Amino acid sequence: MEKFEINILGCGAALPTPRRLSSSQIVNIREKLFMLDCAEGTQMALRRSRLPFSHLQAIFLTHLHGDHTFGLIGMLSTFGLLGRIQDLHIYGPKDLQRIFQPQIDYFCADSPYHIILHEIDPTIPQTLYEDRSVCISTLPLSHRVPCCGYLFREKPTPRHIRRDMIDFYHIPISQINNIKAGMDWTTEDGTIIPNERLTTPSDPVRSYAYCTDTTYRPRLTELIHGITCLYHEATFAQEHALLAQKTFHSTAAQAAQIARDAQVQRLILGHFSSRYKSEAPLLAEAQQIFPDTLLAEDGMKITL
Amino acid sequence: MEKFEINILGCGAALPTPRRLSSSQIVNIREKLFMLDCAEGTQMALRRSRLPFSHLQAIFLTHLHGDHTFGLIGMLSTFGLLGRIQDLHIYGPKDLQRIFQPQIDYFCADSPYHIILHEIDPTIPQTLYEDRSVCISTLPLSHRVPCCGYLFREKPTPRHIRRDMIDFYHIPISQINNIKAGMDWTTEDGTIIPNERLTTPSDPVRSYAYCTDTTYRPRLTELIHGITCLYHEATFAQEHALLAQKTFHSTAAQAAQIARDAQVQRLILGHFSSRYKSEAPLLAEAQQIFPDTLLAEDGMKITL
Repeated sequence: MEKFEINILGCGAALPTPRRLSSSQIVNIREKLFMLDCAEGTQMALRRSRLPFSHLQAIFLTHLHGDHTFGLIGMLSTFGLLGRIQDLHIYGPKDLQRIFQPQIDYFCADSPYHIILHEIDPTIPQTLYEDRSVCISTLPLSHRVPCCGYLFREKPTPRHIRRDMIDFYHIPISQINNIKAGMDWTTEDGTIIPNERLTTPSDPVRSYAYCTDTTYRPRLTELIHGITCLYHEATFAQEHALLAQKTFHSTAAQAAQIARDAQVQRLILGHFSSRYKSEAPLLAEAQQIFPDTLLAEDGMKITL
Repeated sequence: MEKFEINILGCGAALPTPRRLSSSQIVNIREKLFMLDCAEGTQMALRRSRLPFSHLQAIFLTHLHGDHTFGLIGMLSTFGLLGRIQDLHIYGPKDLQRIFQPQIDYFCADSPYHIILHEIDPTIPQTLYEDRSVCISTLPLSHRVPCCGYLFREKPTPRHIRRDMIDFYHIPISQINNIKAGMDWTTEDGTIIPNERLTTPSDPVRSYAYCTDTTYRPRLTELIHGITCLYHEATFAQEHALLAQKTFHSTAAQAAQIARDAQVQRLILGHFSSRYKSEAPLLAEAQQIFPDTLLAEDGMKITL
C-alpha cells in the first residue's frame, strides 16, 4: 500500500513541557507532507523526525491560539535560510493574514520562496486541497475562537492488474488503464471476460481526521463516519468535565463517544493538559467507551 | 559572595538544531533574573533549567532577528497562563513595538500582567536598568541591523564587618553601616581606630558583557575594559573569515582579539554556525590569542 502516515510532533495542550510540545503533526501521504498546526519548537521536532522538510506541501492551522501557531514564523524563516524555493500555502481562520503577514514581511523578507496565506471560513465543511491521491477538507469544530479540524480522505485507487490474466488474454498495454478502472474485456471471438477475473480489488481507501480544539460536538460524527483514524483532543479527564465544558475542550470519554458514534476504526487521544503526570486514566476512561484507543506521544508515527 | 551566574539556554546561530537552540541566556544576580535574547524554544529551556520563572525582571534583546526573538511571544503567553502578575519590561531596538505589540495584543490579551516594550537607541552606550546591586547598560555593536550588546556591572559592595573588633570596641549597632561604608571609629578616649582594623575588604566587583551579533569591532574594547567575563559571538572559524565579514559576524580569533585587547578575565565563545560538526577548531583558534577561553554550551552555568 502507498504511504499514509501520521507523525506526531507535539501533542500537549497550552503549556509546552520538557516532555511534550504543544500541537503539531505531519501527515505523510505518498511522500507529500502536510502539516497540521505548528506549535513553538515544531521546526526542531520536524528536524528530529528526519522527515524531508522540502516535501512539505501545505500547512493547515486549526485556530489562532499560540499553542497551535507559535512555531510558524521560526519554521518559515528556517525554510528560507535552507533555500526552499517552492511556494508554501498556509490555511487558517480569519486573522491569519492580519497576525502573520506582518511577521512574514519582516522576518522572511529575504526568503527565496513565496508564502501564501489563505483565510478560510471554519464554520462550513469545504475542500481546500485536492490532488490525484488525496482530498483535504475542513471539519467545523466548537472552540472559544473560530476553529476547524481537517479531514484527509484518500481517493479510491485503481484495481490491481493480474499480470497472468493480461498475458493469457493478450490484452494490449493500451487497455490496461481501462481494465484497472474496472472495465471488462471482450476477446476477438466476442467472449466477455468480467473484470473480476482480470484484477484484484483496489486497496481500501483510508482517511484521517484531526479534531482539536473542540468541546464535545456530536454533529462531528456524520462528517467523519467510518474513517480509518480519528485524532481527537482529550484535554481533560472525567474529573475535570466541568472545566472542559467551560473552556470548550473535551474529556477523553467525550472523544471516545465521538469515535464510537462515528464508527471510526481507531482513535488517538491528544492535546493533554499539562496538569496530568500520567495520561493512563484518560486512556482508561476512553477505552471503556471505545476500546481501540491509543494515547498520542511526541515522536510517534502511526501507519494507516 | 552573592550570586552572579550566567545560564546559557541557547548558543547556536540562525538555525536551531537538535543539539542547540539559537541565542538566549539568563543572568542571575542575587536571584533576580535578567534574560538576554529569546530564541524559539527558550521557554522550554528555561523550564529545564529550573530557574524560577517568576524572578525574571526584564528581557534585553540585542536585535530583531528571528534567532534572537522568536521565543518571545510563546514565553510571554506562557507566563500569563502561569499567572504572572509582575510587570515585565522588554528592551530592544527600533521596530520592537511595531513587530511585537500586535502579537502581544492578540495572543496575550487575557494575560494578568503588563508587558512594557522599550525601544532603545543601540548606537550609544546608555544605562537601562539600575538597582542596589547591578547596573545594566548597552554596548553598541555592528551588525546588519541595529544591534547592541549588554553590560552587567555589579555595584561595589560594602566592606565586611569584623564581628570580633566591633565587640572589642563596643561599637553600637547604629554605626555598623558607616563602618561598612569605610568610616573609621573614634573611641570614647579619642583614639581613632582605622577602618582597616574593623573590616575586611569588600568582594571584588564583577561584570559581564554579552556581545552578539557583531562584526569585529575594536572600539568595543574600551567599553568592556577589564571586565570579569565576556560572551562574544564566534559564528565562524578562520577559514570563513570572509563570510564573517560579509555577514557582519565575527570569527573565533576576532572574539579572542577583543578579549585580549580589552584585558577581560575570561572569554566565552557562542553563536556558532550550525555548519560546524565540532567547535574544537574555533576554541583552538581563539586560545592561541586568548588562552582563558571556553565554548558555550546549551544548559551551561557559569559562576562569576
